[in-house]
Amino acid sequence: MHDKSASILILNCGGSSIKCKLVDMPHYSILASIDIGRIGLPYGEVKIQSEKVNRDFQQHVSNHEEGIQIILDLLLGELSINKKEIDLIGHRIVHGGKMTGSTVVDKELIQYLVDISDLAPLHNPAHVAGILACGKILPGVRQIAVFDNAYHQSLSKAAASYAIPYGLAEKYGIRKYGFHGIAFRSMLQSSKKILASELKDKKIVLLMLGSGTTANASINGVSYDVSTGFTPHEGLIQSTRSGDTDAAVYTFLMRKEGWGPDQIDDLMNRQSGWLGMSGISSDLREIHDAAEKGNERGQVAIDALSHRIKKYIGAYAAVMGGIDLVAFGGGVGEHAWYAREKVCDGMEFLGIELDHEKNKKIKGSGVVSTQRSRTKVLITKVDEEEIIAMDTFKIGMK
Amino acid sequence: MHDKSASILILNCGGSSIKCKLVDMPHYSILASIDIGRIGLPYGEVKIQSEKVNRDFQQHVSNHEEGIQIILDLLLGELSINKKEIDLIGHRIVHGGKMTGSTVVDKELIQYLVDISDLAPLHNPAHVAGILACGKILPGVRQIAVFDNAYHQSLSKAAASYAIPYGLAEKYGIRKYGFHGIAFRSMLQSSKKILASELKDKKIVLLMLGSGTTANASINGVSYDVSTGFTPHEGLIQSTRSGDTDAAVYTFLMRKEGWGPDQIDDLMNRQSGWLGMSGISSDLREIHDAAEKGNERGQVAIDALSHRIKKYIGAYAAVMGGIDLVAFGGGVGEHAWYAREKVCDGMEFLGIELDHEKNKKIKGSGVVSTQRSRTKVLITKVDEEEIIAMDTFKIGMK
Repeated sequence: MHDKSASILILNCGGSSIKCKLVDMPHYSILASIDIGRIGLPYGEVKIQSEKVNRDFQQHVSNHEEGIQIILDLLLGELSINKKEIDLIGHRIVHGGKMTGSTVVDKELIQYLVDISDLAPLHNPAHVAGILACGKILPGVRQIAVFDNAYHQSLSKAAASYAIPYGLAEKYGIRKYGFHGIAFRSMLQSSKKILASELKDKKIVLLMLGSGTTANASINGVSYDVSTGFTPHEGLIQSTRSGDTDAAVYTFLMRKEGWGPDQIDDLMNRQSGWLGMSGISSDLREIHDAAEKGNERGQVAIDALSHRIKKYIGAYAAVMGGIDLVAFGGGVGEHAWYAREKVCDGMEFLGIELDHEKNKKIKGSGVVSTQRSRTKVLITKVDEEEIIAMDTFKIGMK
Repeated sequence: MHDKSASILILNCGGSSIKCKLVDMPHYSILASIDIGRIGLPYGEVKIQSEKVNRDFQQHVSNHEEGIQIILDLLLGELSINKKEIDLIGHRIVHGGKMTGSTVVDKELIQYLVDISDLAPLHNPAHVAGILACGKILPGVRQIAVFDNAYHQSLSKAAASYAIPYGLAEKYGIRKYGFHGIAFRSMLQSSKKILASELKDKKIVLLMLGSGTTANASINGVSYDVSTGFTPHEGLIQSTRSGDTDAAVYTFLMRKEGWGPDQIDDLMNRQSGWLGMSGISSDLREIHDAAEKGNERGQVAIDALSHRIKKYIGAYAAVMGGIDLVAFGGGVGEHAWYAREKVCDGMEFLGIELDHEKNKKIKGSGVVSTQRSRTKVLITKVDEEEIIAMDTFKIGMK
């Protein structure tokens, strides 16, 4: 291991996929990306990308261990990486339960992730499989866990508690966990760079708008409230998730349609959101195009999405006692200028004044509010891997 | 029927109760109140109150028809009312579906209320039973229906639509209906009186905080958004309802506890809210007392309730583009000065400045913000019967 630099393998192990990047720190130069999809299915998909190589191929991948072996073979073979050059491994972990920050992986942590896998039944078992596979294939390489919800462990009980019987909440660890925490840390970092200033005491609303969407209230860089909850379902309208909905809608549908909890989970996570409202697409661009041509349901979906985002901005301003900065990130946050325009419309009372020209024309990140806007509006970069690499480097090199 | 005055029987028929008032309009003088409880159970309870009489007794009451017959017998006998003196009957109807305002009861309306009884399975059948009983016992007396959700039919599709598949929403009429509409109209009327001015173009947040709680955004007296939704469950924390909760909490509990939709409905409507959070009482006063003595769960319940109310005030300010007035009503709204204090704390950025002395000492309705507070804060009266009487008088005397 070098003294002040390190090569880090960043792994994001999903239910049937592994996303991987090999990066050099502290400069965060990306040496290679390898994505494996359709793990466990007849034809797996492998994609490799580096300065020299850019190809994809099909190959059966039985499980995560086989997937990580394939990644290692590609790194050593095709990319001529020396096994000894991999200094650290950083894992993106969706659900860290009560964990408040990134940490070295050890037996206790693995057991804890197994114990709380009820809270993220699709993700945590895959993360554990990935960690164990790395232990086998790259023995002796330190592994660091970076949790997507750790950032939100700072929420007060008033913000994090649901109004359900406390015994049930305690029994199962039911609370608002919040997600997209790694993305929010990246957005805060990007905001600092754009404004060329620290965010000391700043009251910030962060809007991570990808196909999954989360709103976050942040004071002085610390999470104060968040829209995603016990699961990533709650909150804003998402591409296929309904977000805030009277839960009695679902018990009503269970009775009417004879559905059980699995069908309801599928309905509210995969068939709803702007896809379900519009009946057009899970891609907001297509909905916007249809709405422009007069499609009413498409227009309602965009209006409802914007209405809900406005509500969260106002709600978070209220609990923080004001607002200094609103930042948009993610694919929709970055590209859907029409949604940003709708969201900021009529928000002058919060000191928000959008520069409409800039907002429409901007590419990438930057300021889109006017010079005199008391509350700044930004578009920020979201690079979760960079945060994982930074945490892994910081903790692993200790 | 007199030319410019009328005696009106106001009826609120619940699943196992009838609440009744006989009032003289247009001056809204209350001649008598009769409440019947425990209909269909072995011992019914009857309570009668007027200038001369104030007593309660037990009597078996099989159904709503028998209940209304008892009411009439008491009015004619004990209170010496002449049957011919009852000019109009006004019914409080919880769920009017698509009805946008109060209306004369006819066959079509009765059929419509039967048709939509899925939307209010506990209430609408009782309302219909009450209407039919009145038709039998007081034939020829005009009946007027006043709907609790009609006030909220003005919501835009963006505010009223859930992000569920549109086909399901259309099939079952699933949307945000909103409740406490009659109470909100009463609060608006009370606000006008307190401020001695019209509310033209005013942006108002109304907080109806009883054992059931609803927040409402109102512009120029017209409902713009509302916290209760498809059912009264959604939104603020209530005495025994959880309000906003990640719906995935409930599918999680169904799997873990083997519960079906009925148990979930019971859990989220009757065991949750500040009762469930605190484990102390459904009476907020008892929770406040316990919290004052150091009970942590009681404190969390009050903090969470206040946090959620703040969020709704901010959210509604955001969608209305500002805020001119916040009004508290209902038992909790009127008496829980500590909740009002918490809610208004740190809201200076919205122009809210509470007069702490006034807020703590006030009895009944009035202004509790300071002279210079840009956004006024009021405590208003809530008298649903008065609104029902007014509508019934106006429509019935045409």
